[in-house]
Amino acid sequence: MAGTLDGYPQHVREQVARTRELVARLHAELPRWGLVVWTAGNVSQRVVVDAAGPSGRDLLVIKPSGVTYDELTPESMVVCDLDGVLVDGGRAPSSDTAAHAYVYRNMPEVGGVVHTHSTYATAWAARAEPVPCVLTMMADEFGGDIPIGPFALIGDDSIGRGIVETLRGSRSPAVLMRNHGPFTIGPDAKAAVKAAVMVEEVARTVHVSRQLGEPLRIEQDHVDSLYARYQNVYGQGEGAPAQEKEHA
Amino acid sequence: MAGTLDGYPQHVREQVARTRELVARLHAELPRWGLVVWTAGNVSQRVVVDAAGPSGRDLLVIKPSGVTYDELTPESMVVCDLDGVLVDGGRAPSSDTAAHAYVYRNMPEVGGVVHTHSTYATAWAARAEPVPCVLTMMADEFGGDIPIGPFALIGDDSIGRGIVETLRGSRSPAVLMRNHGPFTIGPDAKAAVKAAVMVEEVARTVHVSRQLGEPLRIEQDHVDSLYARYQNVYGQGEGAPAQEKEHA
Amino acid sequence: MAGTLDGYPQHVREQVARTRELVARLHAELPRWGLVVWTAGNVSQRVVVDAAGPSGRDLLVIKPSGVTYDELTPESMVVCDLDGVLVDGGRAPSSDTAAHAYVYRNMPEVGGVVHTHSTYATAWAARAEPVPCVLTMMADEFGGDIPIGPFALIGDDSIGRGIVETLRGSRSPAVLMRNHGPFTIGPDAKAAVKAAVMVEEVARTVHVSRQLGEPLRIEQDHVDSLYARYQNVYGQGEGAPAQEKEHA
Amino acid sequence: MAGTLDGYPQHVREQVARTRELVARLHAELPRWGLVVWTAGNVSQRVVVDAAGPSGRDLLVIKPSGVTYDELTPESMVVCDLDGVLVDGGRAPSSDTAAHAYVYRNMPEVGGVVHTHSTYATAWAARAEPVPCVLTMMADEFGGDIPIGPFALIGDDSIGRGIVETLRGSRSPAVLMRNHGPFTIGPDAKAAVKAAVMVEEVARTVHVSRQLGEPLRIEQDHVDSLYARYQNVYGQGEGAPAQEKEHA
Repeated sequence: MAGTLDGYPQHVREQVARTRELVARLHAELPRWGLVVWTAGNVSQRVVVDAAGPSGRDLLVIKPSGVTYDELTPESMVVCDLDGVLVDGGRAPSSDTAAHAYVYRNMPEVGGVVHTHSTYATAWAARAEPVPCVLTMMADEFGGDIPIGPFALIGDDSIGRGIVETLRGSRSPAVLMRNHGPFTIGPDAKAAVKAAVMVEEVARTVHVSRQLGEPLRIEQDHVDSLYARYQNVYGQGEGAPAQEKEHA
Repeated sequence: MAGTLDGYPQHVREQVARTRELVARLHAELPRWGLVVWTAGNVSQRVVVDAAGPSGRDLLVIKPSGVTYDELTPESMVVCDLDGVLVDGGRAPSSDTAAHAYVYRNMPEVGGVVHTHSTYATAWAARAEPVPCVLTMMADEFGGDIPIGPFALIGDDSIGRGIVETLRGSRSPAVLMRNHGPFTIGPDAKAAVKAAVMVEEVARTVHVSRQLGEPLRIEQDHVDSLYARYQNVYGQGEGAPAQEKEHA
Repeated sequence: MAGTLDGYPQHVREQVARTRELVARLHAELPRWGLVVWTAGNVSQRVVVDAAGPSGRDLLVIKPSGVTYDELTPESMVVCDLDGVLVDGGRAPSSDTAAHAYVYRNMPEVGGVVHTHSTYATAWAARAEPVPCVLTMMADEFGGDIPIGPFALIGDDSIGRGIVETLRGSRSPAVLMRNHGPFTIGPDAKAAVKAAVMVEEVARTVHVSRQLGEPLRIEQDHVDSLYARYQNVYGQGEGAPAQEKEHA
Repeated sequence: MAGTLDGYPQHVREQVARTRELVARLHAELPRWGLVVWTAGNVSQRVVVDAAGPSGRDLLVIKPSGVTYDELTPESMVVCDLDGVLVDGGRAPSSDTAAHAYVYRNMPEVGGVVHTHSTYATAWAARAEPVPCVLTMMADEFGGDIPIGPFALIGDDSIGRGIVETLRGSRSPAVLMRNHGPFTIGPDAKAAVKAAVMVEEVARTVHVSRQLGEPLRIEQDHVDSLYARYQNVYGQGEGAPAQEKEHA
């Protein structure tokens, strides 16, 4: 399938090459933090084709289907358009590509998407129960509870629609799709991976806390002020590139 | 014991050599995914002796008894016939060989068998409680609940019989033998290892979900359509070798 | 920002260099023992500027904000005064620096501070429930229950004040800040890291024990004698440097 | 302290050297299987001084106090007599040496002792509740429930006495000392390490099973036959060195 990027300008082809490297490297974070087993889980990032044009013309880079985490190389990553159609790559894209593509088509501010079946997040999803905001790091990162998305079958736009409907207008970069698992979004793939790591971390900690009693909710105005501070205090000054947020 | 493969045709001896390498390598997946401690757990794969003949004449390659995971080499793997009798190898075969052999004798479609005592799967087995199908990845991989097999003592065909009686006609490639642990099957050893990884993963996730309430069952027709899609959608097209299934 | 240590005597600059190395190395213990994910968690150590002077003039070495655990080098560590103001280093100090600095200003005996969001300790903190002393290793290390600190917002001295008010006069080197996570102290950073490892260990073990019933309290006089022995028996004799305490 | 082995025959000095290597290597199994944090946990092995003489004259090799798992070398291991008095080595022996020594003095058949604070075993110990025999691998390895030992303070022979009183005449190679943690024994240190790994494994699995209901007991005659088979079937035939037992 080599050559299908031929019609794209040079700067896009270069951007695709850099994104392939980044996405391959970020996949390694999923097993590192215990979020996936076997070949499960996928990370994608948007490639902007024409900053002035409609984002629907953009591309996305994602893991191919069924490749193990030992085999992930920049070359094995695949490129699709935002309808999920393969544009460049030697293998079929992940079977979750349609959901990623739907998110990129409908949320132009999203630059990265991650999907895992991480244990604790998926456990809340199987009960369709949002994770209550009882930790300062949840207030920082998620700005409140972590919401549940609808049950949706794979095969059409149902999953993507469920993600977008739940996250549009929400502070949370994570949605727990019912009976399925978490999807996370961010301005780029790294931010979405961080959200995937954090959603499992808080899902686990709140689960453990709830096992022996009822964790104490943080008052809403404290949640609001923690979230506002966390979103605003970083990356200021000096015209330097935005500093990564942290809360510990 | 060298030389006991002498009576077998060259192509079988070559197949045994390749299978020894594969089975040695696949054993490393068991500690990697946290399914075993110490020397526990075993993987085997069938070697077809005569594709036209009865499968009872086939061989199997399995881990020897009591060898640690650091010592596993292709050479240390042992070869047995389908009565569990040692054919080639310098050590006694795993004490679970009789169960593996029984499955191969009675399920000609099975090419790989795995046994572990992985924590969460074994915990369900100790309560003799099937794992309910509340995750889309369970519907994909297991097609429904993960069933319980009977209590059986080691030493005769009881364990093998329990596995075959439970899995014959079932969608599930995994059985949780009561008070004992999971056995998984597949068309080859890699598929059976994947099933062993997945059965622990879903046993853990559903366990965690149940700790704080009742996970929501997926409706049967959704289970059926997820299973049908997952089993059929992969490996199609282009005459390429069947693509590995994935569900994330 | 190079040169801001210029006004300090040579022995302080050398001490800062050694402390940077130590603090960088000790940060690696946090992911090693599973206490942190992503860039969370921080370790600091005090640098004594003038042993005869007020400890308020001392410095502290801490992790910069938002740096991953793979990037931690002695050079990337930053130096602050005890008001939390950056003295030397190319990045902003951790957002928790104010809390560390408050502890050093108000507890002159403290030479190291650690903060994590380790799962089990944070789970007790979310319920605002002290960990009861039901293990001999808790009596050894903590001398009783592990206490809860108040809810406090980041941004002023509230967190530092909560730590100091809870730990001053307490045997415990660890406080679980409500809805937030553990802070630990020690005569140096290594001791504070050890306390961070141990608080998670006992928080987990007591959690697990409580899941199936009520663990048995150790009688107070036994707690007292275990604590007294553990604090006094080590580091004696031969004029050798104090031997590290252990309890197993 | 060099030279204190001078009075011992050459074959003993050689045996000590080999035992130091073995004991150093076996300590690495404790963090590998997640049984210890920081410097906790210890492994010892008996050195027979005169096979015809009283075992009270034997020596033991054990980890020194407070050494991290990264620093463990054969040279750092220390040698004590069976009163726990240091015979050879540059550091103080583990503070648990008295307990190990008491076991060797009073159970001549014991050649190895291990102590950890592994999470799940210690959790049962904190409730003083034996682990019920609900897994075939428990029947194999422990021959029944895993018993609880008394509460005992460190500093005299109380711990050693509690271990010996509980394990003498028991099938179980493991005792859960109340509020403290597991001690395991074996014919040599490797067998005691294996028992330490297995006691945590079964303590965890039975804990998990009990979280969602009551695991099913294995009938006593089945326990007896599994135990008898497991203890007798291995290491037979061919005059070869006893094959390591396994049950999976």
